[in-house]
Amino acid sequence: MTLSTPAGYRPLDDASLRRFLADLPDLAAKLGGAPSDWSIVEVGDGNLNLVFLIDGPAGSLCVKQSLPYVRAAGESWPLPLDRAFFEQAYYRAVAPFTEGLTPRFHHYDPALYAIVMERLSPHIILRRGLIEGRRYPDAARAVAEFSARSTFATSDLGARIENKAEWMATFARNTALIRITAEVVFTDPLAESPRNRWTSPALDAIAAEFRSDSALKVTVAEWGRRFLTTSEALIHGDLHSGSVMVSETDTRVMDPEFAFVGPIGFDVGAFIANLAMNAIAQAGHAAEGDDRRAEAHWVLEQIPVFWNTWRARFLALWEEGGRGDAYPSGMFAKAGDTAPFAAAREAYVDRIFADAIGYAGVKTIRRILGFAHNADFELIADPLRRAPLEARALHLARRFLMEPQSFRRAEDVVAAVREG
Amino acid sequence: MTLSTPAGYRPLDDASLRRFLADLPDLAAKLGGAPSDWSIVEVGDGNLNLVFLIDGPAGSLCVKQSLPYVRAAGESWPLPLDRAFFEQAYYRAVAPFTEGLTPRFHHYDPALYAIVMERLSPHIILRRGLIEGRRYPDAARAVAEFSARSTFATSDLGARIENKAEWMATFARNTALIRITAEVVFTDPLAESPRNRWTSPALDAIAAEFRSDSALKVTVAEWGRRFLTTSEALIHGDLHSGSVMVSETDTRVMDPEFAFVGPIGFDVGAFIANLAMNAIAQAGHAAEGDDRRAEAHWVLEQIPVFWNTWRARFLALWEEGGRGDAYPSGMFAKAGDTAPFAAAREAYVDRIFADAIGYAGVKTIRRILGFAHNADFELIADPLRRAPLEARALHLARRFLMEPQSFRRAEDVVAAVREG
Ligand SMILES: Nc1ncnc2c1ncn2[C@@H]1O[C@H](COP(=O)(O)OP(=O)(O)OP(=O)(O)O)[C@@H](O)[C@H]1O
Ligand SMILES: Nc1ncnc2c1ncn2[C@@H]1O[C@H](COP(=O)(O)OP(=O)(O)OP(=O)(O)O)[C@@H](O)[C@H]1O
Ligand SMILES: [Mg+2]
Ligand SMILES: [Mg+2]
Repeated sequence: MTLSTPAGYRPLDDASLRRFLADLPDLAAKLGGAPSDWSIVEVGDGNLNLVFLIDGPAGSLCVKQSLPYVRAAGESWPLPLDRAFFEQAYYRAVAPFTEGLTPRFHHYDPALYAIVMERLSPHIILRRGLIEGRRYPDAARAVAEFSARSTFATSDLGARIENKAEWMATFARNTALIRITAEVVFTDPLAESPRNRWTSPALDAIAAEFRSDSALKVTVAEWGRRFLTTSEALIHGDLHSGSVMVSETDTRVMDPEFAFVGPIGFDVGAFIANLAMNAIAQAGHAAEGDDRRAEAHWVLEQIPVFWNTWRARFLALWEEGGRGDAYPSGMFAKAGDTAPFAAAREAYVDRIFADAIGYAGVKTIRRILGFAHNADFELIADPLRRAPLEARALHLARRFLMEPQSFRRAEDVVAAVREG
Repeated sequence: MTLSTPAGYRPLDDASLRRFLADLPDLAAKLGGAPSDWSIVEVGDGNLNLVFLIDGPAGSLCVKQSLPYVRAAGESWPLPLDRAFFEQAYYRAVAPFTEGLTPRFHHYDPALYAIVMERLSPHIILRRGLIEGRRYPDAARAVAEFSARSTFATSDLGARIENKAEWMATFARNTALIRITAEVVFTDPLAESPRNRWTSPALDAIAAEFRSDSALKVTVAEWGRRFLTTSEALIHGDLHSGSVMVSETDTRVMDPEFAFVGPIGFDVGAFIANLAMNAIAQAGHAAEGDDRRAEAHWVLEQIPVFWNTWRARFLALWEEGGRGDAYPSGMFAKAGDTAPFAAAREAYVDRIFADAIGYAGVKTIRRILGFAHNADFELIADPLRRAPLEARALHLARRFLMEPQSFRRAEDVVAAVREG
């Protein structure tokens, strides 16, 4: 390890992980048997961290530990360890509002930057399932429920100034990951950056065209400014289909290490964009006798399922009782206020949708022209098959950004993908 | 003292203030002579704190100390002492950018919640000077300079994510004063609150009309939401003409205890609103042979002086070098980007002006229908003379809020006051 790390930190390995868990009696008891009875696999297929799954005679656990660099890039891209702190702080902050919608949090070790949580099984990453052509009838609704509940409760509609201030103060310091988003999502993809890549040469022309489109760049930069200056609620910060694990009957949101008090539309837009990209990519996974048209159709339909659930749940929570300091109910206590106040609540969620469309545009571009690509497209091995689908997604993203008034409802997104 | 306060805190009096300063050798030396040679007066005419002016043979100082309650309301309205912490933290944060534009900060005592700073002399509060019909040719320009420099440098245009995060984390905890603003500026004035008062019976009808105007209330609540969720730059938080001290040749911004990372337009709008209110109030201070028309005209003209200076300075700072993470220059490095990027910068400051107009509307209403009124109007003893001028200000405020598109430039504000 050439990077300097705090005393007490070391990346866990099979032996040290056994000792670490053996020293936590409640958790060792969950696994059952002796440490030597446990089987351990490291499954971190992600970009950043170590993830271990531990199976014992009585039960199983998952341990996620920060590495001092970006795993997908190697030690040449150092990254502070404290992202595990923010991940567990987020789980704890939203726990009262998201029962059953995340892996259960068990323990955090601040010296090892390691989180012990419920091992989800037989869950797989939603993105993987969708790529394989599976359907998860409840997933979009559950993610909507998760997002609406957690953001309402931590916004100025659901929380008091004093409570929100604690989240602001804590998560403002998640600067390493906020910086990564600012750079790899908003700045790099439309600039010249050695971190960018795209399907070349097929997309060379469109990449050059996007990077010469000043109006598009100004729009993306404006969304970047809003991302950095909107403190609306505690958000997940990376709510794509790779941050959701699903079984046939259960859905959990995980990997909230990018959390901060930011714009609600950023999470909503991330999920919409990733459903749209998956739907567009389905044709690339077609095989003999399986054209994936029905799957694409189904995935696309999850966009209105997601948004319409989100909208209804958020409005219901607000109507049941906004206890926050924004739109205080005391201002709308007169009989004549009822309808205008209801209209204001609708305007609020419509504005969240408009924000989501903007962020969806940005997030789509970055997955095709930037650093971190999506398995939805990456697993289409043949670049000649992949590139036209990626180009369709880029075209949609540009419409999101430059024709926002065409997207007033989730159904408009469905129509645009079908046309595109 | 019935309110409980931390050990080590006591409100300073003549004797304890002498001991406190005598124990700070550098500051005692500034005063010169022996502690018994110093003359001390308490001048806190404000709503919240103790303010002492100390004169010695060699020089003078000012000490500002928090009280555990709202001074203007008494011990029945408790208020945490930590506002002095935030006031000094703000002075220190903006010091690198605002040389010569604030009182010089000398010392902070965290146990006493007391700030020692330069005693300004022969300065008086700008609001007082304007009420007396005096002119301060450089004041509007200096306040604009102060605001443009401090907000640019602490915004995502001028500061890096990591630096801004420290301010966000620190000032998010200024919840006592953020709550006061949320309640007395945004919520109470258009709701029923025992803290509200207005010139009665003359303004009873218009007060009732405003409180029944659901559309107006939704608009004010929406500005309140933005106030709580916009983390644009470190702002002063209370930038009215009572937070500025002036001499013939010098202008200083003071009393930044409401500081937090908030919307830039809130400060800009506060200053514009308070100039407009003073201009409207001038007629109420007319006397034999002094109709105050020229004074009203002059004060009104300071609105474009202020805004046009602010706009030009902010843009110049941005052009000289945005070192922040919003609108990163690397995105606009191509030749064709120059004009669109310049247009984006103009759009940014125009948006700040639009925000300022909204906040100016809110801030005007609260000074006439809410808890804390302005000396500009309050010193007009005859309610029959005061009320019509206050009604004019309310009318202007409603136009700010309900016809924002009529206010694109500072000159539009001047014209609206003249018409109104
Ligand atoms: N609680 C869990 N139960 C079972 N498997 C899990 C659990 N948490 C993570 N995994 C597995 O580990 C993988 C990586 O997890 P995670 O996404 O949290 O890591 P990461 O390093 O933050 O990745 P990235 O940020 O690139 O998405 C997941 O894709 C999943 O397969
Ligand atoms: N540095 C200074 N030099 C000279 N006089 C000062 C200084 N600071 C404050 N004063 C005087 O003390 C008065 C009150 O100061 P200040 O506004 O900071 O107090 P406050 O309690 O915060 O009042 P409020 O919040 O109601 O405006 C000012 O109006 C001014 O007359
Ligand atoms: Mg991750
Ligand atoms: Mg004050």
